[in-house]
Order: sequence, then structure tokens, then C-alpha cells
Amino acid sequence: MTNRLHDTIQAVEWREGKLALLDQRLLPHREEYLFFTETGGVADAIRDMVVRGAPAIGVTAAYGVVLACQQAYVRSPDDWRAAAEPALLGLADSRPTAVNLAWAIARMRSRMGSIHGDPVPALLEEASRIHAEDIAANRRMGALGAALITEPCNVITHCNAGALATGGYGTALGVIRSAYGDGKISRVYADETRPWLQGARLTAWELVRDGIPVELIADGAAAHFMKQGDIRWVIVGSDRIAANGDVANKIGTYSLAVNARHHGVRFMVAAPTSTVDVNLPDGSRIPIEERSPDEVLSMAGRRVAAEGAGAHNPVFDVTPAELVDAIVTELGVVEQPNREKMATMMAL
Amino acid sequence: MTNRLHDTIQAVEWREGKLALLDQRLLPHREEYLFFTETGGVADAIRDMVVRGAPAIGVTAAYGVVLACQQAYVRSPDDWRAAAEPALLGLADSRPTAVNLAWAIARMRSRMGSIHGDPVPALLEEASRIHAEDIAANRRMGALGAALITEPCNVITHCNAGALATGGYGTALGVIRSAYGDGKISRVYADETRPWLQGARLTAWELVRDGIPVELIADGAAAHFMKQGDIRWVIVGSDRIAANGDVANKIGTYSLAVNARHHGVRFMVAAPTSTVDVNLPDGSRIPIEERSPDEVLSMAGRRVAAEGAGAHNPVFDVTPAELVDAIVTELGVVEQPNREKMATMMAL
Repeated sequence: MTNRLHDTIQAVEWREGKLALLDQRLLPHREEYLFFTETGGVADAIRDMVVRGAPAIGVTAAYGVVLACQQAYVRSPDDWRAAAEPALLGLADSRPTAVNLAWAIARMRSRMGSIHGDPVPALLEEASRIHAEDIAANRRMGALGAALITEPCNVITHCNAGALATGGYGTALGVIRSAYGDGKISRVYADETRPWLQGARLTAWELVRDGIPVELIADGAAAHFMKQGDIRWVIVGSDRIAANGDVANKIGTYSLAVNARHHGVRFMVAAPTSTVDVNLPDGSRIPIEERSPDEVLSMAGRRVAAEGAGAHNPVFDVTPAELVDAIVTELGVVEQPNREKMATMMAL
Repeated sequence: MTNRLHDTIQAVEWREGKLALLDQRLLPHREEYLFFTETGGVADAIRDMVVRGAPAIGVTAAYGVVLACQQAYVRSPDDWRAAAEPALLGLADSRPTAVNLAWAIARMRSRMGSIHGDPVPALLEEASRIHAEDIAANRRMGALGAALITEPCNVITHCNAGALATGGYGTALGVIRSAYGDGKISRVYADETRPWLQGARLTAWELVRDGIPVELIADGAAAHFMKQGDIRWVIVGSDRIAANGDVANKIGTYSLAVNARHHGVRFMVAAPTSTVDVNLPDGSRIPIEERSPDEVLSMAGRRVAAEGAGAHNPVFDVTPAELVDAIVTELGVVEQPNREKMATMMAL
């Protein structure tokens, strides 16, 4: 059974009893899927960035829980919940910043509690529901975000918050797809997004496929183009949003936000409520993943930096709520976010 | 004859009747010099970035004028000035943004006016003087800039404004070398500086050679580290400074300046007066070079971006004087630069 939930790019799919992940490390040169039947491989795939993007990691983890319980039920039909526990913990540990990972596992755990007999059908149904809800949330955010753009303009996006980063359609790129469809976007400037080049490799690939005009720029050039005056919005996704509206996203987002405010460019974050961590009072508590210095010191497998040089490679940063003009979720739009507005939105 | 003017890295040297340029495209992997005996090759080397950095381009152009007049004198001993003219124009056209190129050619032209007989000895003496003065200016700026740093701290630099970018010692890296020698710098964060990676390839190489602690970061990460609070200064060079103190420098500098102001980090520009273009009232008139989109779309010769994506590749930007805390030249320090202070400094 193939559950093609959407007619465009699917980075995550359940296919004939296996979890299929589009290997994003090979894009845009090759489109290859890897197939998984056990949870350890899924955790490694998340860690190694076969799949990335907070919502896509959440959907992947949900299917990973299905695999964990499937394996556990074969081994220990009477005690499969306990038997699955180590695999669930390994999955939860695969990457630290995106809260969607913990959110999806928690939701699957909740469903695990009320199952009798073989857990697989019920859990697969729940994972597919998480997947479908993510796509529906993106469609809804697309419409809500596009409505904030009042006249045709150019926009900047950073990293990849597209179909590849989600269950399908995309968060920031969902807004851009919707707004482009409404005739409100003339051109997308895509930050190339060092060190992993998600903008150059993934966002450009998605937008070219959709026929949306995209121009890549070096990350450092965004401020220059903002000063030229033809950019109205920065539109990005998020990996975790704190209860007060502080936003963790790909390294470089915070620099964009500071520059956006300086230039009177508006700053929109599109993310499903599964990205909102109501337990974190503010962004200072969000764990920021540091990845290998090699991602900065080397490029395409070749050392570029002088031998002996070190590198720091934090891959996320935190943009304070006061620099955010709008947080768009599937439940609605929070303009000038703060703790109270976020709580009101989450209670809808 | 080899005129080793300085005991460290020499990107530009006159060796036995030839202009030797360290091929910076090959660093940090290989240290190879290319040798030039005719001006057309020198113009190509500037355009193709065998040599880069405004002061180094100026010194190179001065030697290029020697070669042009040498060739012209062989062909037309009675009319060598006119015969050299096409080569001088080609040299002047090689890159648009750095004013040091035009400045050096103008100074060589002025010396050309008062020569009788073979022009080579006098012109070589003038070019060597320009070269020596550049190194002396860098030493002086190093001391002046270091004096602005009042306590041990971390700093950020962008691109490469080091020995490789100058006659020797460096402008921004000259300040960093001096300040490190004075015990005032604990660590240098070097922006990798996309797309050409001058930070990763050149600045890291220079600082590692000098034993100065350097950590590379992605350009987008600078704001994140400024927020962490352990950075006090951004120190950069410049390719052209307008009469009002607006500063053109490598793309990404302006973004750093906006972020520095936002975080209370001070912003220092170190550049010799040959970089100051008193004829330009402000930075809006500085020509900004656009290089090939391939520099963004590809990496190490391999396409990274999706086919069909475009790219914009302006390689400089302009930082307005109001975001600059100090311009350091060999004549002195201008804090909070404006037109009047710049004019006073230039009249010294």
C-alpha cells in the first residue's frame, strides 16, 4: 500500500510496510529513496540528515514508532510496550532542537496506551493521521500566511521549510506557494544557507519544480538586497517556538530578523502547533544543536579551510519574539507575538 | 633581484624582472606563484582573482604599469607613454569596486610624466615605494587600531584583509596581529565569507600560520555569537571609502554592521588612505561588482544548486558611515565618521 497523501514532493512515505525516506543528502542531483524496517536505522537517518526539517522529522518519528512497536510485538507480544522502549528513547535522542520529534513520539505513545492485540494497524493509522494533519496544517498556513501579504512583492526565505521539510507542501514554502498562486509574489530570494546549503540544494529544487522564480543569494547578501528596497517579507519555518513566541530556526535566521527590522521588512514564521513548545517559557532554554566542525571546514567532501583552523557549527539560532511580525500556525495568525497571544492561540 | 619587503606572507613581489603573484585561488592547499612580464596577463590575474584585496590590487597594478611601460619603451622608445596607454586602460578596467586600482595607476601616471629615457628604473622605484608604503601603512594602522581595543576580547573579521590582501601584514588582520601581540585578543571568529570563502581559505590560513586562535563560522552565525556576548569588535578592511565615510567591502559586511549595532558590538574599518575616494560624495555612487552566478550555484567546480535556479552575486556591499564606529587609516583614527572628520583626516 502506498499512501500518496499529496500530489507533489513526498520526502516521507509509508510504502508496502516500509518507511521510505527521500535521501535529501543527494539532492538536487539524485532522487533516491531509502527504505527502513527497523527503528535504529530511522534514528540514524534523522541524525545523518537523510530527512530534515522539524515537521518531516516529526512525521518520520511517528512512522518510526510504528516500526519499533512492530518489532517489539514480534519479539514480545505480551510486553511489546516495554520492549519498544529502548527504540523509542533512541529515536527521541536523534536530534535535539526540533520539538516536533518529541511531540510526535508523545502522541504515538498516547495511542499506544489504548491498544489491545497487534499494535501495528492502529499505530499506522495514527502515524498516517499525523502525516495527513501535517499536510492539511501546511495548506491552512499557506492560505493564512498568503493573506498577510497585501501586494505583489519579493520575499526572502532561509533554509528549506518546504515539502521536503514537512509531510508535504511546506510551511514557509507553503505560504510562498499559496501567495505565488494568488499573484502576490514576484520573486523569491533564497539564502543558500550554509553550511548544509538547504537553500541551494533543496529550496531552489522545489521552487524550480513548481515554476516559481527563485534567485539564490549568499547568506551575507540578504541585507544588501533588503537595502535595495524590493523585499517586503522574510518568510521562514521553525524547529521550536517557545511559549513567549521566541523562535528557533536554522542558523542565520536571527541575523535575517535583525536585518529585517532594521530595513522595515516584515518577518513571518510559519510552523504548525506541533512546533510550539508550551513547556518552554522562552527561547533561552531551547537546546541548540552543534554539529561537526567538518560541515564548515569542508565542502563536498573536500577540505576548504586551512589545516589547523577550528570551526564552530551551531546549526540553529533563536530569534526573539519582538523581532517577529507574525507567527502563522494552522490555528491562526499571531501578530507581534507574546506569551498571552500565544497562549490564546494554542487554546483554540 | 628579490625585494622581500617583509618577513611574512608576500602575495605580490617583484622578482628578477618579473611580477610574482601568489595564486590565491589555490590556497590553502597549494602555494604557487605565477610570473608576469606583460600587463594583459596582470589584468587577467586581477579579474580572475589570482590576486585580490584592494591594497594588493593597487600594488599589483603599480607593478603592472612598470610592465606596460617596459613593453611600450621597447616598441616605441620615443612615444612610450602613448604606446602604454591601451595597457593602462585595460589594467584600470580589470575590477570596478576597489579604488586602490585607479589610485595606484594615477600615481604611476604622475611619475611617468617626469621621466627622461628608459622609464623602467624610475617606475620600478615608484612601484616599490607604493608597495613599501602600503606595508608601513598597515603597520601604523595595526598600532592605531589595536589601541582602540581596551581590554582582552574576541573579535569577528570578514573576508580576508590580511597580508594576502595587501602589500603585506594586512589592514584588518594587521590590527588583529597587533592587538593579539598586545594580549588584547583571545580569539578571532572568521566568517567563512561566501561565495569565494576568503575567510575559510585565506584568513584562517594566515592566522594559523601566525599562531593566532581562529574559529571559522558560517556567515549567518555571526549574529548568534554576538548575542552570546563574548564579541566586542567587528574588524574589517575596505575596497572603497566615500568622502562621507560610507564603506564598500565584501558582501556580508553590511549585514555584520547592522548586527553589530543591534548588539552593541563596535565596528572598525582599517584601510589605507589610498582606499578613500574623496571624489565620491557617498557610498551610493560606488560601483558594486556583480560576478558570475556560478560562484553561488557551484562549489569546488561542482554544481550544488538545482538546475534552473538563478543566482545574484554582488560581491561587495556598502555600509553607511553611521554604522561605523571607527575608520583607521595610516594618518589616524576617525571615530563616528562623517564628511567633515574624513576631510580633516585626509588633509593631514
